Amino acid sequence: MNKPNKRIVTCAITGSIHTPTMSPYLPITPQEIAENAIDAAKAGASVIHIHARNPENGAPSPDLNLFREIIERIREKDEDVIICTTTGGGIGMTVEQRVAVVPEFTPELASLNAGSINWGLFPLIGKIESFKYPWEEQMLNATKNFIFSNTFESIGEMVKIMYENGTKPELEVYDVGHLYNIAFLVNAGILKTPVYLQFVTGILGGIGSTPYDIMNLQATADRLFGKKNYQWSVIGAGKSEFTATTTGLVLGGNVRVGMEDNLYLDKGVLAKSNAELVEKMVRIMNELSLEPATPDEAREILGLK
Amino acid sequence: MNKPNKRIVTCAITGSIHTPTMSPYLPITPQEIAENAIDAAKAGASVIHIHARNPENGAPSPDLNLFREIIERIREKDEDVIICTTTGGGIGMTVEQRVAVVPEFTPELASLNAGSINWGLFPLIGKIESFKYPWEEQMLNATKNFIFSNTFESIGEMVKIMYENGTKPELEVYDVGHLYNIAFLVNAGILKTPVYLQFVTGILGGIGSTPYDIMNLQATADRLFGKKNYQWSVIGAGKSEFTATTTGLVLGGNVRVGMEDNLYLDKGVLAKSNAELVEKMVRIMNELSLEPATPDEAREILGLK
Amino acid sequence: MNKPNKRIVTCAITGSIHTPTMSPYLPITPQEIAENAIDAAKAGASVIHIHARNPENGAPSPDLNLFREIIERIREKDEDVIICTTTGGGIGMTVEQRVAVVPEFTPELASLNAGSINWGLFPLIGKIESFKYPWEEQMLNATKNFIFSNTFESIGEMVKIMYENGTKPELEVYDVGHLYNIAFLVNAGILKTPVYLQFVTGILGGIGSTPYDIMNLQATADRLFGKKNYQWSVIGAGKSEFTATTTGLVLGGNVRVGMEDNLYLDKGVLAKSNAELVEKMVRIMNELSLEPATPDEAREILGLK
Amino acid sequence: MNKPNKRIVTCAITGSIHTPTMSPYLPITPQEIAENAIDAAKAGASVIHIHARNPENGAPSPDLNLFREIIERIREKDEDVIICTTTGGGIGMTVEQRVAVVPEFTPELASLNAGSINWGLFPLIGKIESFKYPWEEQMLNATKNFIFSNTFESIGEMVKIMYENGTKPELEVYDVGHLYNIAFLVNAGILKTPVYLQFVTGILGGIGSTPYDIMNLQATADRLFGKKNYQWSVIGAGKSEFTATTTGLVLGGNVRVGMEDNLYLDKGVLAKSNAELVEKMVRIMNELSLEPATPDEAREILGLK
Repeated sequence: MNKPNKRIVTCAITGSIHTPTMSPYLPITPQEIAENAIDAAKAGASVIHIHARNPENGAPSPDLNLFREIIERIREKDEDVIICTTTGGGIGMTVEQRVAVVPEFTPELASLNAGSINWGLFPLIGKIESFKYPWEEQMLNATKNFIFSNTFESIGEMVKIMYENGTKPELEVYDVGHLYNIAFLVNAGILKTPVYLQFVTGILGGIGSTPYDIMNLQATADRLFGKKNYQWSVIGAGKSEFTATTTGLVLGGNVRVGMEDNLYLDKGVLAKSNAELVEKMVRIMNELSLEPATPDEAREILGLK
Repeated sequence: MNKPNKRIVTCAITGSIHTPTMSPYLPITPQEIAENAIDAAKAGASVIHIHARNPENGAPSPDLNLFREIIERIREKDEDVIICTTTGGGIGMTVEQRVAVVPEFTPELASLNAGSINWGLFPLIGKIESFKYPWEEQMLNATKNFIFSNTFESIGEMVKIMYENGTKPELEVYDVGHLYNIAFLVNAGILKTPVYLQFVTGILGGIGSTPYDIMNLQATADRLFGKKNYQWSVIGAGKSEFTATTTGLVLGGNVRVGMEDNLYLDKGVLAKSNAELVEKMVRIMNELSLEPATPDEAREILGLK
Repeated sequence: MNKPNKRIVTCAITGSIHTPTMSPYLPITPQEIAENAIDAAKAGASVIHIHARNPENGAPSPDLNLFREIIERIREKDEDVIICTTTGGGIGMTVEQRVAVVPEFTPELASLNAGSINWGLFPLIGKIESFKYPWEEQMLNATKNFIFSNTFESIGEMVKIMYENGTKPELEVYDVGHLYNIAFLVNAGILKTPVYLQFVTGILGGIGSTPYDIMNLQATADRLFGKKNYQWSVIGAGKSEFTATTTGLVLGGNVRVGMEDNLYLDKGVLAKSNAELVEKMVRIMNELSLEPATPDEAREILGLK
Repeated sequence: MNKPNKRIVTCAITGSIHTPTMSPYLPITPQEIAENAIDAAKAGASVIHIHARNPENGAPSPDLNLFREIIERIREKDEDVIICTTTGGGIGMTVEQRVAVVPEFTPELASLNAGSINWGLFPLIGKIESFKYPWEEQMLNATKNFIFSNTFESIGEMVKIMYENGTKPELEVYDVGHLYNIAFLVNAGILKTPVYLQFVTGILGGIGSTPYDIMNLQATADRLFGKKNYQWSVIGAGKSEFTATTTGLVLGGNVRVGMEDNLYLDKGVLAKSNAELVEKMVRIMNELSLEPATPDEAREILGLK
């Protein structure tokens, strides 16, 4: 890849962390999610990361029919953008439910979480006066006792299913140890290099989102894999979205933004669409003499077919 | 504390990771564990970290009677050394089982694991030709699907029980995110500063044991807590025991050695006792113009009563 | 200082590194320098860093009359902006020549170089086809054998003159060792804390301008001084101007831009004025929810009277 | 090189920093220097770094006859140890004087300082009540205004002379910027890779000798050269000798000890010979499962003929 000024912008449209009460602009229905995705792609995102939600109440859902509708609606308008489905799912889902999207839709990319951590969303409760839906507070509160479970065995099974379906794993790295997990899986012949790493920073339970944290993750990946054997991108949860991604840019990395990770354009200013977050990211890139990769450039960077 | 050349040596006598097949010198019975502890204290350890094992087959055990016998046997010969009980326990134990030692024995210190990780011992299987006891291979194999569970709720409960019993938590930090967990618990008023951090490095599932990893943990603790609000020690699992602890020494930290973490004195040379590992640690300290703290000096460093 | 979203933007108008052949927009005469300064201040710079040049041929000059004209012209239009004179001067100037501006004009700030390094500008020669003035190539070529001389004795003398004149030193830090020099001078009672550090990165002879370098400088300053005893800013020479300053922003620092450091707005696009560089810097700040400090806010941050 | 447990121990016998008043054991005459070298080699040093001193008063000397006598006396007893002559010399020596040993003796290695820094020995004055020889205090005092001069031009000339004589430069790195200087010289085709780097830490004027400093130097070398294109060793000046070299060991580096760098075995305990310092270094290595390389193993590591 000889285009160092091109960087992949991934947009994670809705995720399973934020709840409808937190923003009226959070896309819920397949139609909203698809529209947000299409506009994010127009704004510069070459990868769309997809979760589905129950259209009735906005709760995260593993329903394959919802995923199907989202993907079909995106493809009607945009045949080119890379689709990356989640396998992280939501609280209470089984491994089978989480990975089912892969054989069903054979996406080019799917997320694969590289280890287990506590997953503490409960501090968000204090910021909300009253919730629209009862499941929101219940879900947030349940994270006091929740572990985001990704054992070595389940990771190995998911990798196998992905490779069988021509899907490249986007390895979600929530802490330094997850890089060692990946190195173990590479050495064991389970994962193939180059691996694609997504540094997910700022989740309570995982690593923070300061520049030090991001630099340490990158330096550790360099030591464990060597520069040629991995590509990487970075996410900053919440208000660190743009400081973390900008840190990623100056360090040579790719970036992810979107309402899964952050609902705000600026302090107190809700983003009205995912596209607004992508546009802001692209403005920062341009100031640093960088450009968003097209889907085909992203395919080249990541070695997708 | 005005004695920068004094460092606490903790000795972890038997733990729950290694199995009888791995070393004939691994202490199993209360008598063996106590004798190892007494000799380790004579060699320079001021803190003894205790697990119990089933005397019949060496399997990790939460049996309070075993802990009682170990502690009483140590106290017969050594009234001074600081006792630090585990609350990590072994695979399959409940939180209640794990913490029960605290109200029962009100130790000065008890370990408290600061987050959840995968806990992969299964690669050890390949190094063993045949196991003495069936539980050994079963236990190691089960870690393919095992998460060492320490949720925010269970940590909070354990902290409460410790404080009620005058026990200071030794916070086991297996990755950078665990420092953020602790910072969250400090800010929430659940943990009091100064906190005592044990960096546990080299477990598959957590951070590695290179000097970079240890320095990053320390630098992160500096940023999150400030130098005056924490003390720290370091463990290196397996063959990294002495490089990791030596790194800790040059960085100003305290150290833990012992057969819980490592069975070898040198490549291919099994330690015949925990005291041998402590003696080696003390020789390295002396070459660096450092001395092991006495139990009373350790109490002063850690603010124990 | 309770305004973490305010950061000082310093603009270094013309310096003594770049030569007239390199950009037709490089300000040379006192009038050009003053106009550039006034516009840079309007664009958001609260500190103006001043060098003088021979109006005939653009060569760096220590002539106090030129400095006087520059300062008077700035003050006619802008009574508020903070003036920071150079004491770095140009090749061949004596220490006395370099510091003479301080007693003469008693500026609020003056640069003070915190150590000696090789100063290699000669690689710039290869980028120029033909020079406007003979001194340009001679000066660049002479740097093959040039040391930027700032001995402990001369630094001490300059500090004394600055303090006698109510001028705060802006300590130019070209490498990690310069931070140790400053720590030595603080411990010796020669420099008073809080010190103001300007990390000058990317000069051949000194430290590079990668994010790693900048983070290491900051982390070293933290260790040597403690966060409360210093403020800092960062410069990236040449094409690293905006990646280095953006790194500084995400790390919590202040920034310097301007034609002393960099002549380009983007690859191949010369800046037509210093104000254009400041405007670009401010756009990046705004995307990161930061704002340029006013001169009075900068005085508060730096403890100027 | 497939012997990761072998590390080169260099012994720097007398240098030009310490003065006779500081230790009665400092070797001064060619006979003393040679005897110290021979014993250091027996103790495990595979490289001997040589300076000469005026036998009358101990002042550093560039006299080739002294160097000749030292080398001949060493070779009488030890035909194998690698000889590394200084080209750093002492205060007041010209570049020609400094490099003259290379064509005269064609040593396998010679030191080559990779940049210019302030060189502040003057704080040592306060530790001495009365000096044996007047030159000692004069020399130390003169460093207030001294720059250790190694311009790009003089470095280039020295490299050329070394390569013509089959001498490999041992590049003395006093700060991070010196690594960038070396990278520049490699890219310019002046220096050939793999380069051999000696990190000289703890000199006032250069980088400190903390583990952070050493790790940053190593990490920077990794980024600039790539692991395969350099070997490295580390020196800690004064009381940091053994913490700095031990840090080097755990990071995978080679080490230098000796009375050029440090006169003490422990706090308040003067080393009676250079061999004592080497023996202590080797004891630390052995505790870390490392062994000193033989001269031939060192030749293999460094690519000497």
